[in-house]
Amino acid sequence: MLTRELIWPNSIVVVGASNNISKPGGKLLKNLIDNHFAGQLMAVNPNEEQVQGIPSWPSVDELPPVELAVLAIPARFCPEVAEILASRKGTKGFIVISAGFSEESEEGRKLEDQLVAVANKYKASLIGPNCIGIITPAHASVFTTPVPKLHQMGCDFISSSGATAVFIMESGIPKGLHFASVFSVGNSAQVGVEDVLEFMDDVFDPETSTRVKLLYIESITNPDKLLKHARSLIRKGCRIAAIKAGSSQAGSRAASSHTGAMASSDAAVEALFRKAGIVRCYGREELTTVANVFMCKEMKGKRMAIITHAGGPAVMLTDALEAGGLKIPKIEDSPQKQALKEKLFPGSSVENPIDFLATGNAEQLGAIIDACDRDFKEVNGMAVIYGSPGLFPVGDVYEVLNKKMHTCKKPIYPILPSVLNVKDDVAHFIQAGNVTFPDEVLLGRALSRVYNTPKPHEDRIYLEGVDIPEVRRIIDHAKDGYQSPEVVHRLFDAAGIPRVQERVAQTKEEALAFAEELGFPLVMKVIGPVHKTDVGGVVLNVRSAETVASEFKRLMAIPETTAVLMAEMASGIELFIGAKYEDRFGHIILCGMGGILVEVLKDVTSGLAPLTLCEASSMIKNLKSYQLIKGYRGQEGVNQRRFAEIIVRLSSLLRFATEIKEMDINPLLGKGDKIVAVDARIRIEK
Amino acid sequence: MLTRELIWPNSIVVVGASNNISKPGGKLLKNLIDNHFAGQLMAVNPNEEQVQGIPSWPSVDELPPVELAVLAIPARFCPEVAEILASRKGTKGFIVISAGFSEESEEGRKLEDQLVAVANKYKASLIGPNCIGIITPAHASVFTTPVPKLHQMGCDFISSSGATAVFIMESGIPKGLHFASVFSVGNSAQVGVEDVLEFMDDVFDPETSTRVKLLYIESITNPDKLLKHARSLIRKGCRIAAIKAGSSQAGSRAASSHTGAMASSDAAVEALFRKAGIVRCYGREELTTVANVFMCKEMKGKRMAIITHAGGPAVMLTDALEAGGLKIPKIEDSPQKQALKEKLFPGSSVENPIDFLATGNAEQLGAIIDACDRDFKEVNGMAVIYGSPGLFPVGDVYEVLNKKMHTCKKPIYPILPSVLNVKDDVAHFIQAGNVTFPDEVLLGRALSRVYNTPKPHEDRIYLEGVDIPEVRRIIDHAKDGYQSPEVVHRLFDAAGIPRVQERVAQTKEEALAFAEELGFPLVMKVIGPVHKTDVGGVVLNVRSAETVASEFKRLMAIPETTAVLMAEMASGIELFIGAKYEDRFGHIILCGMGGILVEVLKDVTSGLAPLTLCEASSMIKNLKSYQLIKGYRGQEGVNQRRFAEIIVRLSSLLRFATEIKEMDINPLLGKGDKIVAVDARIRIEK
Repeated sequence: MLTRELIWPNSIVVVGASNNISKPGGKLLKNLIDNHFAGQLMAVNPNEEQVQGIPSWPSVDELPPVELAVLAIPARFCPEVAEILASRKGTKGFIVISAGFSEESEEGRKLEDQLVAVANKYKASLIGPNCIGIITPAHASVFTTPVPKLHQMGCDFISSSGATAVFIMESGIPKGLHFASVFSVGNSAQVGVEDVLEFMDDVFDPETSTRVKLLYIESITNPDKLLKHARSLIRKGCRIAAIKAGSSQAGSRAASSHTGAMASSDAAVEALFRKAGIVRCYGREELTTVANVFMCKEMKGKRMAIITHAGGPAVMLTDALEAGGLKIPKIEDSPQKQALKEKLFPGSSVENPIDFLATGNAEQLGAIIDACDRDFKEVNGMAVIYGSPGLFPVGDVYEVLNKKMHTCKKPIYPILPSVLNVKDDVAHFIQAGNVTFPDEVLLGRALSRVYNTPKPHEDRIYLEGVDIPEVRRIIDHAKDGYQSPEVVHRLFDAAGIPRVQERVAQTKEEALAFAEELGFPLVMKVIGPVHKTDVGGVVLNVRSAETVASEFKRLMAIPETTAVLMAEMASGIELFIGAKYEDRFGHIILCGMGGILVEVLKDVTSGLAPLTLCEASSMIKNLKSYQLIKGYRGQEGVNQRRFAEIIVRLSSLLRFATEIKEMDINPLLGKGDKIVAVDARIRIEK
Repeated sequence: MLTRELIWPNSIVVVGASNNISKPGGKLLKNLIDNHFAGQLMAVNPNEEQVQGIPSWPSVDELPPVELAVLAIPARFCPEVAEILASRKGTKGFIVISAGFSEESEEGRKLEDQLVAVANKYKASLIGPNCIGIITPAHASVFTTPVPKLHQMGCDFISSSGATAVFIMESGIPKGLHFASVFSVGNSAQVGVEDVLEFMDDVFDPETSTRVKLLYIESITNPDKLLKHARSLIRKGCRIAAIKAGSSQAGSRAASSHTGAMASSDAAVEALFRKAGIVRCYGREELTTVANVFMCKEMKGKRMAIITHAGGPAVMLTDALEAGGLKIPKIEDSPQKQALKEKLFPGSSVENPIDFLATGNAEQLGAIIDACDRDFKEVNGMAVIYGSPGLFPVGDVYEVLNKKMHTCKKPIYPILPSVLNVKDDVAHFIQAGNVTFPDEVLLGRALSRVYNTPKPHEDRIYLEGVDIPEVRRIIDHAKDGYQSPEVVHRLFDAAGIPRVQERVAQTKEEALAFAEELGFPLVMKVIGPVHKTDVGGVVLNVRSAETVASEFKRLMAIPETTAVLMAEMASGIELFIGAKYEDRFGHIILCGMGGILVEVLKDVTSGLAPLTLCEASSMIKNLKSYQLIKGYRGQEGVNQRRFAEIIVRLSSLLRFATEIKEMDINPLLGKGDKIVAVDARIRIEK
C-alpha cells in the first residue's frame, strides 16, 4: 500500500523539525531543503516560528492540510500525532524515523501496532518506524547522508536496515553507482521490502522505469509476494540483486536480536532467490559490484574479451571468470584481427587477453574495442583494464572508454585500478556517469554470480494426473505424526508417484499369503523403528516361503516393531527425494542419490515447491553425482525426465498439503524408465 | 644473490637520467631525490651537466666508482654498460628497468643472458630487466608512483609484475597498509621472487625484521627454494600471503603470454602453499585485506567478538566468519558481563554480536573492548564496526579505537564503513598508523583464509622401513611405460606398502597351481587392458579349481590380454592413493576413497611429497567421505594412522623415484588395521 502522497507529495511536514542539524529532525529538514523539494514544506516545533527558514507550527493541530508527514518525535507521541494528521489534515503518507518501537520493547510494539492501525484506517502509507526514511525523485526525506543525486536509470534500493543502507550507498557511490530511489523500511510495520517491490512492479513502465533493483533484507516476511513481484519484474526486463543477511546459524541469531523478527531458514531463501532469478550477494561490496554490472549493458552470452595494458590483472581476472564458468575464448584468426594487430605496438597480443602493452594509447584502445564490438563474434562483452604507473595522466584513454561505453552494443566493464595515481581522471570518468570496478577479481566474481543465476522459470503448477481432492481427503483424515504405509501409498497413488507393491503383514499367515501374491524375490522390513537398517530390521532378497516365515518371527521380536512390510524387490540406482516445510516459504524439495551420497556426502540440490519440470531437471543436472544418474561405466542410468516428473508430482502434491512438514522418499530405485518409490516417511502436523 | 650494494648502496647512478619526469629515467631520479637518498647520487646523460640538479656524466666511462646502477637505456646498450660498470667502477648492484628483453623477442633473450653473465661474473645482483625497480629503506629506485613511506614493521612486498605491484600498492595504501620494502623482479633474469625471499630469510632478525611478506607470482621457477624459505620464515614468526596468478587453464595461457614463462600446474601450487603455510589469495583486494589482517596482532584461536553500533554489518560478518569455520560464541553470563551491560544504553545487547546501538559512544566502546580483552575468555579477537549516518563526526570514537589497538592483547579488526560520511575521521585514524577494513565481508573472508591455512609441518622425510637403495635399483632397471605387476610389487615391498598376495599366470597349469598356493576365495584379472572392468576382465570370488580353469580360458581371449593375475580376495572399504609428477614441484599425492567417490565425485585431497604423517592425516580428515573412513552405520572403518602411514611411505618412495610420472593404487582395501593395496598402475618415464 504505497500511496501517491508518499512518493510524489505536494506538501510535507517534518514533525519534530530542529535547527540543530546534528539531530535527525534537523538533518532531515536540511536534506529536504538542500535537495529542493518543490512542494510546500512545513515544520512542527513548539518553540520556533521558523525552522531553518521553513515556516513552523507549534503543534500539528494548527497545521493546514498536508499530504506527507515525517515524524521525528518520541515514539509515545507518534500514534496520536498520526491520528490527528490522518483524520483532520488528510495526510496519506507517514515516514516515522523515531526509534523505540517493537525493536526495543513490548510497550513499543503496542505503539507500533497503534500506528499501523491509524495508517490502515485512513488508507495511508506508513514507512518505518525506526528507519532513515526514503528518497524519491520528489523528495529526500532521510536524516542521513549521503543523499545521492537521483538518476532515473540508477538503481532502486530497498533496505531493512537504515545504517546498512547508508553503508551500502557509501560503498556504491565512489564506484559510480547511481540510485533512482532509496527506501529504508525499518521495522516494516506496514510496508516491508516485499511491498515496495510490489509497488515497483505495479507502476513499472518499460519506457521510463529503471531496470535495476537492490535489496538488503533481514527477514523475509512474505516469501510469496517477494517471489511473485521479483519474478514479474525480472520478466519485464529488470535485474535484481539482494543480500539476505543471517545465512549462518549465528548470523540468524544476530539478525533476530536486531530486528526482533524470526530469521527464515537459509536453504529456503536460497531456493526462493533461485526460483525468482534474484542474484544473491553476501556483502556490501559484492552487492554494489553486482549493481555496477547491472548498470552496464546486459551480456548476451558468457564469452568475454579482456583488454589490458598490464598482464597481471588480466591473468587474475581470467582465473576468476573461468572459475565462475565464463569463458575467455581465443580470438580467431581473421583479416580484422590482423588489421587490429597492425594498429598496435610490436609485442602486443591480440589473442585473449588482448594486451596492448604499458605504452598502449587511447587510439589503440578505441580500435580494440571497436573490433571486439563489431568484428569478433566470439566475444559477448569486454573488460577493459587501464591504470597508470603515475608518469602522466590518462584522461584521453578514459575519454575513449567513456564514449565507447555509450556507443557499443556489447557491454564494457571498466577496471580502473589506479585509484591513487590517476585519482582525478577516475573521478572525471565517474562524473561523466560511468561506473568503475577498482578490483578485477571482485568484478570477475560478481559477473560469475550474475551468470550463474538462472532466469525465472514458468510458474504453472503441474497437475496432470494429480488428484487434488483425493490428496485433501487423505490429509484431512490423517492424524498428526509419521504416517502408516497405507496413507503414504494412497498419497503417492493420488499424485501419480509410482511405488513398489507392498503389503503389511500382522501375522505369519498374512505374510505367507502376501508372498504368494507379490511373488519372489521379496523384501521384508520392520514397521515401527525409525532407523530400520541399524536394528537389523531389513531383509533383502527373500526367495522362499520358509524364509518368509522364519524372518517374520525374527523381525516381530525387534523392539518397537508393530508389523512387517512385504514388498517386491525392485532394483536399480538408489535415488532420494526429500521435502521440508518452512514456515511462510512452503516446501523445500531436495533430490539426490540415496545411501551414502545423501547421508554422508550431502550431495543434494534443492528447490522451492511448486517446481516445474525445467526446475526439477536443473536440480538433477546440478548434482555432483549426475554422471551416475545418467549411467556410468556400463551401468544403466535412469530416465531423467521421468525422475524430474516424480519430483514435480511430489511438489504439486505438497503444494496442496502444507500439513506435511517433513518427508523422505529413500530410496527410489531407478533403472531406465522404471523408477519406483521403495520406502518413504511422511510426517503430518496440522 | 642479493648484495649489500643493492639494498644499502653508498652511491647510485641513474644511467639514462632525464629532466623529463614523464620518462622513466626522469621519474626514477625524481623519486630518489624526493625520498632523500642519503648517499652519493649521480646521473649519466650525454647532453646535460646536471639532471634535476644532480651532477651528470656524458657516459659511464668517466664516472667515479659507484655501488648501484639503475639502467634506463635501450636494451641493446645494457650489457656493455653493465660490463663497464662492473669491471671498472666496482658496481655490485644493477636494477634494469628497460624493457625489450626476453619478454619481447629471441634477440632480447640473448641480451638478457649477456646481462646475467656480467652480473654473475662480478658477483653483482641484477634486478629485472623489465621491472619498476625496488624500494628499500636506503633508496626508492622505482620509476612509478605511489612511493609509499616505508615503515620498519610494514610488509615486505615482492612482485613478478611491475604494473601489478603498483596496483597492489594502490589497493593497500588507502586502507592503511604499510610497506617495509618493495621488490619488482620483472623478468627475474638473475633474481626471482624466491631469491628475494631467501635473502629475507637469511637476514631475518627477530628484533628488527618485519614479519609480513606479500608475494605476487606469475611463475614459480624454483618451488623447493620457495617452500624452504617461506616455511623457514613462517617458523620464525612471519606470515606470508601470495597470489599465484594463472590458476585456470586460460589464466595460465594469459600468464605465459605475459612473462614468457611456463605456468605451473595449479594443483601443485595449491599443495606447495599449503605445505609452506602461505595464505593463498586470488586478487589484489583480497591480498591487501589479508595483509591488513597480518598487520593486526595474531589471533590465538577462532572465536571472535563482533562489536557494533549497527545490526546489518554484524550479521553479514557473522555469516562470513561462520562460513569460514570461525565462531561467534555467545558471551557467557558473568558479573563482568552484567557490569558492562549497565554501562550501555537500554536496548543494547551484550550477547555476541555486542550491539551498543546507533547512539553508542566512545566511552562505551572503550568499556566493551576492555571487557572483551580482559574478561571474556571465550573470545580470542574483536571486530569493531563503527560508521556514521552523517550527523556528527566520530573522531572521539576512532581515537578510543586507536588507543585500544595498541594496548589490547587480543587483536582488534577495525571496520570503518563510512568512507564518505566521516572520510576525514577515517583518514586521521589511518594517519595514526592503523589499518582499516571498509567491508566487513571481505574482512570475514580474509580472516577465514588465514584461519584455514595450516602452519607448516615438520619437514623430515619418513624413512622407517623404506629401502631407498632397493627402490633405486628397481627404478634404474625399469623400462619406460606402465610397469608389470612384478615391478609394482617389488617397489611396494621396498617401501613397506602392504599388498595382497598375487601371482601372474601365463598358463592354465600355473593358474591352478597358484590357486592352490593362495587359497580360495580368489580374484582373477586380465593383464594388458587398461580399464579391466569395462572389458569384463575381472572375476571376483572365485571359489573352485574348475572356475579357475574356465575363467582363465575366457580371460585370455579378451583382446590385449597377455596374462592373468591371481590374487587373494581382500575385503573392506575401497581406498585410493594417486600421484602425479609435476615438473619442478615433484609429486602431488592424492588420497580418497575408491570407486565412484574418486571417479565421479572427485572427493580427493592432495599434498606435495614428501608428506609427513601429520600432513597425510589432515588430507584424510579433509575428505568429504571421511565419515565413511571412520566407519559408518555399523560398518567397520579403517585405521587412519595406518592409512596415513601408507600415504607417507608412498610419498617417501616417490621422493627417490622422480622417474615415476604417474601412479594409482586403486583400490586399497581397508578393514581396521589391515589395509592392503589390491591393484596399482605405475608409469615410469626417464
